[in-house]
Amino acid sequence: MPVMTAEELEAFLYSHFPDMEDRAFRVEKVDDGLAQVRLLYHERHLRPGGTISGPALMTLADTSMYIAVLAMIGPVALAVTTNLNINFLRKPAQADVIAEARLLKLGKRLAVGEVTMYSEGENDPVAHATVTYSIPPDHTPRGLG
Amino acid sequence: MPVMTAEELEAFLYSHFPDMEDRAFRVEKVDDGLAQVRLLYHERHLRPGGTISGPALMTLADTSMYIAVLAMIGPVALAVTTNLNINFLRKPAQADVIAEARLLKLGKRLAVGEVTMYSEGENDPVAHATVTYSIPPDHTPRGLG
Amino acid sequence: MPVMTAEELEAFLYSHFPDMEDRAFRVEKVDDGLAQVRLLYHERHLRPGGTISGPALMTLADTSMYIAVLAMIGPVALAVTTNLNINFLRKPAQADVIAEARLLKLGKRLAVGEVTMYSEGENDPVAHATVTYSIPPDHTPRGLG
Amino acid sequence: MPVMTAEELEAFLYSHFPDMEDRAFRVEKVDDGLAQVRLLYHERHLRPGGTISGPALMTLADTSMYIAVLAMIGPVALAVTTNLNINFLRKPAQADVIAEARLLKLGKRLAVGEVTMYSEGENDPVAHATVTYSIPPDHTPRGLG
Repeated sequence: MPVMTAEELEAFLYSHFPDMEDRAFRVEKVDDGLAQVRLLYHERHLRPGGTISGPALMTLADTSMYIAVLAMIGPVALAVTTNLNINFLRKPAQADVIAEARLLKLGKRLAVGEVTMYSEGENDPVAHATVTYSIPPDHTPRGLG
Repeated sequence: MPVMTAEELEAFLYSHFPDMEDRAFRVEKVDDGLAQVRLLYHERHLRPGGTISGPALMTLADTSMYIAVLAMIGPVALAVTTNLNINFLRKPAQADVIAEARLLKLGKRLAVGEVTMYSEGENDPVAHATVTYSIPPDHTPRGLG
Repeated sequence: MPVMTAEELEAFLYSHFPDMEDRAFRVEKVDDGLAQVRLLYHERHLRPGGTISGPALMTLADTSMYIAVLAMIGPVALAVTTNLNINFLRKPAQADVIAEARLLKLGKRLAVGEVTMYSEGENDPVAHATVTYSIPPDHTPRGLG
Repeated sequence: MPVMTAEELEAFLYSHFPDMEDRAFRVEKVDDGLAQVRLLYHERHLRPGGTISGPALMTLADTSMYIAVLAMIGPVALAVTTNLNINFLRKPAQADVIAEARLLKLGKRLAVGEVTMYSEGENDPVAHATVTYSIPPDHTPRGLG
């Protein structure tokens, strides 16, 4: 089960990542191997065609997996992404984007998960990512083996 | 051969992408199926451990492929990324990052390429990405079949 | 909804793919955007350590997405994979492997889906893949937009 | 520099992998962080449209990276693939396929490389893959840091 709350994770995020000073992410909930993170809609994330930019969605995918991992192992700032694969599926609406991250594996050295992203109020995903995090040696994950 | 110069591509980039207002990217050169783009070092791109953040490198990978594609097909703002896969290989130095993008295929509908990223002055890459762009129907690429 | 049954899809598979003469795959069921395919356990698929080989799992991932796509668009043999990304998560048991394929997008030109693979009787996945198929121009998919 | 020859690597491969009894792969050469592997053309690898199947190319990508890794660290059969991402670029000719594998990183725990595949005699690649191998703890790689 999670060892940090959504509030603790969001506070941790903003205290450690200087390039997130616009606080565009909201950690909405965490559960066993799951995290839901919201990207607040902002003109800053638009690209030509009026759609949310690929980099904004990639940052959301990476951040939501980071939250899902830290929720289980605690505040290990030095967990780092080793691989991220993202498919962009549909043009996002001009709305918040909700990311649902789900751990597929939480091992001692690697955590792997998938993230599905939706424009708020829509059923079809706008993007889907798989993300691998490397966990520093001295942090033993709890659960999910 | 390229149909736009490095200067034209950089100007195009900043005129179309509002979230790049910090002008962190420099289009250094383009050639037949190749582009070199520099991410200027800035504290804003750091993450815990003092290293350049994953999202900053993903944005660099995506941007440098966009430049490599547009160099060949002209200023088609609506070319969109459909897939991006990135491997983070080493902790980047606190220095500019240079991306070398190379097209593997430039078809009518899809362009696929790979991007290798280096900290300035280093020989071993910090990250490597493969990126697929979807090209709108009415833009015929020149060359590379 | 599917336009082919599991039986029709399995028969189509074996009539079109000469390198599947060992008939190791069983199409177990198909539904709206979903397919379940079983890889029969056989010593032939083992690798050192007594585990099922990566290539056997990659073939299963590719095949189960092909079945999920064809179930919706009909017997289009020339649908081809353009991208496959697979994460190997755990050592598979010496048992059948069950693949659950799910379409994330079924467009006119591209279908994208994810595949989760389990050793029979186990809850934790052994592998997870995302797969993109390119659909020939004159075949209009039904449903899923 | 390599610690095994092409001949030793090919012999090792066939002695450890029972599903390669058709001996379709030839280890042509290895060098510092590089391997060249040939997939012999055989009707068995065809798919509809007369082209070499995706699974045959995925197996080639995986095998050629395995050879590139083992060439540097020695005969560690239990090195296992953790991630493979492949882009299929062009319809292969009815000819042998040559894979050029190149290590991007050879760490203590993970090796990452890229593989470009060509139909014999052609200049444009038919497929490109990035592959990550996990290396068992007690095998220290030599070189490439």
